[in-house]
Amino acid sequence: MVTKLALLGAGRIGKVHAKAIAEDKRAKLVAVADAFAEAANAIAAQTGCAVKTIEEIEADKDINAVIICTPTNTHADLIERFAKAGKAIFCEKPIDLDVARAKACLETVRAVGGKVMLGFNRRFDPHFQAVRKEIDKGSIGKVEMVTITSRDPGAPPAEYIKVSGGIFRDMTIHDFDMARFLLGEEIETVQASASVLVDPKIGELGDYDSASLILTTKSGRQAIISNSRRASYGYDQRIEVHGSLGSVSAENQRPVSIEVANKDGYTRPPLHDFFMTRYTAAYAAEISAFIDALENGTPMAPSAEDGLIALALADAAVKSAKDKSAVTVSY
Amino acid sequence: MVTKLALLGAGRIGKVHAKAIAEDKRAKLVAVADAFAEAANAIAAQTGCAVKTIEEIEADKDINAVIICTPTNTHADLIERFAKAGKAIFCEKPIDLDVARAKACLETVRAVGGKVMLGFNRRFDPHFQAVRKEIDKGSIGKVEMVTITSRDPGAPPAEYIKVSGGIFRDMTIHDFDMARFLLGEEIETVQASASVLVDPKIGELGDYDSASLILTTKSGRQAIISNSRRASYGYDQRIEVHGSLGSVSAENQRPVSIEVANKDGYTRPPLHDFFMTRYTAAYAAEISAFIDALENGTPMAPSAEDGLIALALADAAVKSAKDKSAVTVSY
Amino acid sequence: MVTKLALLGAGRIGKVHAKAIAEDKRAKLVAVADAFAEAANAIAAQTGCAVKTIEEIEADKDINAVIICTPTNTHADLIERFAKAGKAIFCEKPIDLDVARAKACLETVRAVGGKVMLGFNRRFDPHFQAVRKEIDKGSIGKVEMVTITSRDPGAPPAEYIKVSGGIFRDMTIHDFDMARFLLGEEIETVQASASVLVDPKIGELGDYDSASLILTTKSGRQAIISNSRRASYGYDQRIEVHGSLGSVSAENQRPVSIEVANKDGYTRPPLHDFFMTRYTAAYAAEISAFIDALENGTPMAPSAEDGLIALALADAAVKSAKDKSAVTVSY
Amino acid sequence: MVTKLALLGAGRIGKVHAKAIAEDKRAKLVAVADAFAEAANAIAAQTGCAVKTIEEIEADKDINAVIICTPTNTHADLIERFAKAGKAIFCEKPIDLDVARAKACLETVRAVGGKVMLGFNRRFDPHFQAVRKEIDKGSIGKVEMVTITSRDPGAPPAEYIKVSGGIFRDMTIHDFDMARFLLGEEIETVQASASVLVDPKIGELGDYDSASLILTTKSGRQAIISNSRRASYGYDQRIEVHGSLGSVSAENQRPVSIEVANKDGYTRPPLHDFFMTRYTAAYAAEISAFIDALENGTPMAPSAEDGLIALALADAAVKSAKDKSAVTVSY
Repeated sequence: MVTKLALLGAGRIGKVHAKAIAEDKRAKLVAVADAFAEAANAIAAQTGCAVKTIEEIEADKDINAVIICTPTNTHADLIERFAKAGKAIFCEKPIDLDVARAKACLETVRAVGGKVMLGFNRRFDPHFQAVRKEIDKGSIGKVEMVTITSRDPGAPPAEYIKVSGGIFRDMTIHDFDMARFLLGEEIETVQASASVLVDPKIGELGDYDSASLILTTKSGRQAIISNSRRASYGYDQRIEVHGSLGSVSAENQRPVSIEVANKDGYTRPPLHDFFMTRYTAAYAAEISAFIDALENGTPMAPSAEDGLIALALADAAVKSAKDKSAVTVSY
Repeated sequence: MVTKLALLGAGRIGKVHAKAIAEDKRAKLVAVADAFAEAANAIAAQTGCAVKTIEEIEADKDINAVIICTPTNTHADLIERFAKAGKAIFCEKPIDLDVARAKACLETVRAVGGKVMLGFNRRFDPHFQAVRKEIDKGSIGKVEMVTITSRDPGAPPAEYIKVSGGIFRDMTIHDFDMARFLLGEEIETVQASASVLVDPKIGELGDYDSASLILTTKSGRQAIISNSRRASYGYDQRIEVHGSLGSVSAENQRPVSIEVANKDGYTRPPLHDFFMTRYTAAYAAEISAFIDALENGTPMAPSAEDGLIALALADAAVKSAKDKSAVTVSY
Repeated sequence: MVTKLALLGAGRIGKVHAKAIAEDKRAKLVAVADAFAEAANAIAAQTGCAVKTIEEIEADKDINAVIICTPTNTHADLIERFAKAGKAIFCEKPIDLDVARAKACLETVRAVGGKVMLGFNRRFDPHFQAVRKEIDKGSIGKVEMVTITSRDPGAPPAEYIKVSGGIFRDMTIHDFDMARFLLGEEIETVQASASVLVDPKIGELGDYDSASLILTTKSGRQAIISNSRRASYGYDQRIEVHGSLGSVSAENQRPVSIEVANKDGYTRPPLHDFFMTRYTAAYAAEISAFIDALENGTPMAPSAEDGLIALALADAAVKSAKDKSAVTVSY
Repeated sequence: MVTKLALLGAGRIGKVHAKAIAEDKRAKLVAVADAFAEAANAIAAQTGCAVKTIEEIEADKDINAVIICTPTNTHADLIERFAKAGKAIFCEKPIDLDVARAKACLETVRAVGGKVMLGFNRRFDPHFQAVRKEIDKGSIGKVEMVTITSRDPGAPPAEYIKVSGGIFRDMTIHDFDMARFLLGEEIETVQASASVLVDPKIGELGDYDSASLILTTKSGRQAIISNSRRASYGYDQRIEVHGSLGSVSAENQRPVSIEVANKDGYTRPPLHDFFMTRYTAAYAAEISAFIDALENGTPMAPSAEDGLIALALADAAVKSAKDKSAVTVSY
């Protein structure tokens, strides 16, 4: 059986997912919906799928699953609606910027037995996957300390910052999920320090651009996260896990790995400068995992619950950065 | 205008090229031919192209170009035939294992004004391309010395060795082309030392499995090549160019770039273990370059002449390894 | 004029300093004192200096300066005593485990116009020095975030833990000083999370063996520190500084830098397994800097004040780890 | 018993050896001789040894051994003279630039049962030692191919080139010895290509500045050597050994190992720019090995025979570069 999918939202990330579906023999993109006809038409032309309205997709019994790539403030509504319509859902993170709304959404999903996978794509990066595999194999013994470095090449425009939910809900949320993916134990407390070092305009909007965090689990495992909205050298994405028997790390990725040596030294090119080129393989792999789960009836992972917990951690970080306290997380 | 292509040979490498064509909007694979119906059918099913005979493709006025991935001993015949039929040709290396036959083929091509591109895919590897770009930019000044390390994960089976033309024509031929790509000047003399260190059976077949070469240009630029049919650590493919102002190098590639540290040290995974995963990007890029040349009417590169010269260098190496002399190359 | 030095304490680190003095033409070790005659005699035999009592050294008008390598609980007393005796002092860190005692000691030193340099040897590591030089040159613009990884190969024995003052005063103190050396601005708040993950006995003694810290300056610059009492892969000592224009880092050091490649991957040897081999060059350079300062009359750096501030930061970390609060540091 | 040593030649390298002796408790430098009184006096002042004439040292029954660091053209004479005087000899390479003279010298040494160690210091570099240890441990199986990259930061002055014996006898000689150290089998044939790419003046003096070599052993093991008199990025000294089970390599060394990342990429500093800083540890270790051999009565290694063989290989390279033939080496 070929899974028939519809795409809600035909923007930048929607195109990436459409391409991943096109390359997977087990699935077929049959419909696309977008408020902008032009965007939907482009994907339809490229993939041969139909342009439809949300209502038509909802009503189409032939469609098994939807990929939600619409703006964040529509996620919770669409998840509830399509869960009720009996369709499996892949939704870009976050469920909502408000924990209460996200919780309510999850309750609805549970009530109707909905299936939701959340787009924490980094879990599917082949290098980070390999790190996790080493942990699972026992190569480093018991996990003790996780270090996550996550820096953007440049700060997003003010317009984006305004609706982003702030650095912790927009950017660190990926690192919260990664920390949970690697720590192997739930996080109990969050300690954060955040400031405006990159762009004063970000501060004027009530947000931060530079943040350091410590996450501590019940048994005392610790993760540290270093975030910045600016890294002149590219998209800085590293993880390192230290355990009782050793350590495992994934280094940064660059488009080409050459080295030029001259009288000034040995120079390798900058890193990827964009999340979509850095995480190309991860985007394809997460859609493949979604189709796997649909085919095999296995649980969706990362789940909507994973999305809720990451959001709760972001809320705790907001509070910690303000209060200068260690905030205990409650889900 | 969309270029209409036919694929001759539906084996392993044919599939790779079919995929590259499918991802290029400027081209369309319209036909495939293979002596084994099953192989041709598989590609037809996957791409939607028709299964045809060589004769049908030859006669089809709609087809602009062919991709030749048939066995080596058919290359020269097919090149001549399709050049006469007025179709642009992309052919896997080599033109032929015999220099005289390759020369005759080229004369025919020239006589009919044929267009032929030869599949020296490594020139299109993004890392090696970046090395070349640095040379062209002048980053290292005048090129003086090139070092090419090229080792296979394991020796091919005896059946393959028998028809391979020997290590210099089968394996080193890529390195000859790479040396020319980087030296920026024609090679004048070849010095080779070759032996059987990996597998005595290879020696029984009259071939070598380990070889070292020095190539010298007229002005005295030098390239050294190190070849082995066995590298336990994976597919070892490195280049380094030393010039008057500095040096540029491309390191080995591995599927995942993690590092595990423990009491025994710091370990990164082995390299790619297969040329098709190592050179995935290069295969796609060379087909794209072929389509570029078709669209823009620019010269085909690497050309059939490049193929002939590489073959002549291989012949010189055979002689040098036997005679223990420095052999002057003649084209 | 050759500086005449006396060594107080002829233990492990005393021997290192004696060797450094022997190699510096501008200085001469003329006396050594130690409660254990055997230790003092060994150094005397090796260097040709005299064995004397503390009192004799104090009274000797010919001795310009002393190197204090005695147990921690004698440091403050000896500093006061030799400052009063008019001798320049190089003292191993810390001044004392108690901030009040350290403060009192500094007041005495100030009152008599004493000169004291504190042995934060890591500032003199050539790699860390080079990092600092890049910051000073402006290579990375304005410093924003510092990351310090500092892990011991193995936990010290319980006997040592008991008198160590705890992980923050014993181990992190070096990282506090390094953070200050790199941040270029005083630290205002300390946030710490600490636990017992390595050895329950350390917990029974009221100490921690694993700690994560965030240090924040007034303008919002942040440093994160990751400490563990165990690292199977060796003595893990890395620093990284991220700034407005780029980043600079110093990687780990290993005794030999070879790499073995085989079917299991590419392996480099473990790191140094001992602080004295890792920081050999740093120990020599700090003694040289002490002699420089003596000769040129330049200020001692790191100063006793630097020692006091590091101690205050350690106290803040103790409080933060307990209270789960962000502790404002007061000097 | 403390070995009593005399130093013949108080130049740059003599000073290095004097320092190594001073740090070794088992030995004492008791005399120094040099045609330039000033140079000898400097070492005497620094170490406390006496300034003597060659004759006085020869006659001094108390002196066990001599370190010969005089100009190359005096080596053979001094070796013969001090072997006859019953003193153990450490001599800088080469024995002589002329193979016949070197052979005659060795015959004299053998006749009087002399002990001679030759200063191929690179064998004692800790990184190259570690490479050899891995081979001896069997980590890479049977050795098959050796790659040696050896490039000087800049060409020496014409005055030096004139008396150097040419690039093969002056520079490659170290690589010949290294190849033998690693190949584990004697070299049978030499193939060389050499040219003038760096400085035409070098060519006018009849020498080369750029050379590539292939060395082949009886069983077919191969070593390639890449030499240049100029490397803008520093003193380029790498070795790599490929075997049946894997490979082992030693990378370049730099004074500090930091990395600066910015918009232009990731840059590490240039390499050491001088052989004496690059091989500091090796110089100390070779003197220590000489004293070991003296104390334990074990054979001297590298021996005078090793020096002779390296010289014969250099002669073969001279011939091969000229004749364009593979030259069979005879000792």
